[in-house]
Amino acid sequence: MEKFEVTILGCGSALPTTRHFASAQVVNLREKLFMIDCGEGAQMQLRRSRLKFSRLNHIFISHLHGDHCFGLMGLISTFGLLGRTAKLHIYAPAPLDQLLQPQLDYYCAGMDYQVEVHTIDTTRFAPVYEDRSVTVYTLPLRHRIACCGFLFREKPTLPHIIREKIDFYQVPEYAINQIKNGADWTTPDGEVIPNRYFTRPSEPARSYAYCSDTCYLPELQEHLKNVDLLFHEATFGKDLEKRAQETFHTTAEQAATLARDSQAGRLCIGHFSARYEDETPLLHEAQEIFPNTILARENLTLKL
Amino acid sequence: MEKFEVTILGCGSALPTTRHFASAQVVNLREKLFMIDCGEGAQMQLRRSRLKFSRLNHIFISHLHGDHCFGLMGLISTFGLLGRTAKLHIYAPAPLDQLLQPQLDYYCAGMDYQVEVHTIDTTRFAPVYEDRSVTVYTLPLRHRIACCGFLFREKPTLPHIIREKIDFYQVPEYAINQIKNGADWTTPDGEVIPNRYFTRPSEPARSYAYCSDTCYLPELQEHLKNVDLLFHEATFGKDLEKRAQETFHTTAEQAATLARDSQAGRLCIGHFSARYEDETPLLHEAQEIFPNTILARENLTLKL
Repeated sequence: MEKFEVTILGCGSALPTTRHFASAQVVNLREKLFMIDCGEGAQMQLRRSRLKFSRLNHIFISHLHGDHCFGLMGLISTFGLLGRTAKLHIYAPAPLDQLLQPQLDYYCAGMDYQVEVHTIDTTRFAPVYEDRSVTVYTLPLRHRIACCGFLFREKPTLPHIIREKIDFYQVPEYAINQIKNGADWTTPDGEVIPNRYFTRPSEPARSYAYCSDTCYLPELQEHLKNVDLLFHEATFGKDLEKRAQETFHTTAEQAATLARDSQAGRLCIGHFSARYEDETPLLHEAQEIFPNTILARENLTLKL
Repeated sequence: MEKFEVTILGCGSALPTTRHFASAQVVNLREKLFMIDCGEGAQMQLRRSRLKFSRLNHIFISHLHGDHCFGLMGLISTFGLLGRTAKLHIYAPAPLDQLLQPQLDYYCAGMDYQVEVHTIDTTRFAPVYEDRSVTVYTLPLRHRIACCGFLFREKPTLPHIIREKIDFYQVPEYAINQIKNGADWTTPDGEVIPNRYFTRPSEPARSYAYCSDTCYLPELQEHLKNVDLLFHEATFGKDLEKRAQETFHTTAEQAATLARDSQAGRLCIGHFSARYEDETPLLHEAQEIFPNTILARENLTLKL
């Protein structure tokens, strides 16, 4: 199966603690890296992860609170120092472009690569990035400022060729790709052999969703249906449900409810309030509703 | 003796490593905290140090390379979240004020405290801050951009009162402060008792100098004479002296030479190039010239 992994670089929230870095993750899809959020320290954590800096060309920023974007300038500068030449794409709500530009002009003058900021609309479920293997969608969230999550939906891969059948019918090489893409095969005698004889279905396309920061939004399940892995913020425990509501955050229980109602494969909770020295109670709260829940932690890699 | 300590929050250089944070330090002078440089992650390290955030009112920035100032926005935001009301003073070369203002306007709108940026002249040796216990001077350095070090020179404290002499002459309480400030004492009989009978000298005033980033500047010794503790960058070992020269950095040997020629009490070297997995060779190089040298490391506190 092709690589599809998520590495947590930081899963703390706004206030610094000695236990967590600010929000940042990397999605590794077939050795192409996509960063989601870029809190302070993201570049140190990226170094620690041993993921290759040069494989990272796309950064998705959920919203412009500092704990989700203050690591950008450090990362961008470091890429420059390392001699990067490939353009770096940043997808973020306005006005990141305006905030970043004067800093880029000053701190990154003479750098050998370009940074392009794509302003995204956080109010719609819509594709913001696409390549041959994945489509990334914005997930409208509700927070104190414009904010969206991101859904990484792998594209279906071509079916596997059954080599023995190819050999049996002596299908020439040039036709194999056509069969992979769905064509039947007509023998020299004019007999039509249906495509399904030569192929078996590829692995189902996988999906990953990142939802942080947001209040509990049951309507998200529409977009999250059957998601393989859901990362959802769980800033608070149920004792602080009122505080969660006031600050547009989610409790562990609510995150688990959304995972259950979306029939997600797995749930990873993070973005923990600095007040929790130990997040096990949050885990237990969530597991009561959705057993397949784990706690995010720095340097954790989840395979899909 | 009054508290005068330096805590290293980060002593790496521009490229991130898993061993070091970017440049940042805190000078604790009688529980007043002064930050020197504020690289990415400074707020996390400050949290780790257990120094009180509310005691920090002054930040000195040597120069505007990212590894010396990209932690500012995170720290400023966190102070805001913690409900700070006291003004925060930042002393930095231009154009930090211009670079910071749009970010403050956006990320810190509605914060309960003010940030005042004082633009400093990095080309002169001059006081930039003064209170009753310390004067902070800029030390002109030579780097790829405008850069200065900082010299913290404690003010002499008042002499100690010799209690037995006070009692013997039955000096009234109101006169003790005058004696502490240098007055003689005239007895009711008109006899003048010289000040020195009642006092013994206070501890000598101490000083701390921070020099990073810079090429080797022998002329600094004029300002560093007898400094108690010198922190000096030693980005490279002597094998890379040419590289040090080209990039306006210093070797460990050069830093030690400056410490020796300045008759410094102690030398702490830091700002290590990311290429050194182990800085012991740098230490040994320095110690050959100036034995009382130590390596900076994160969370190290040096008492003066």
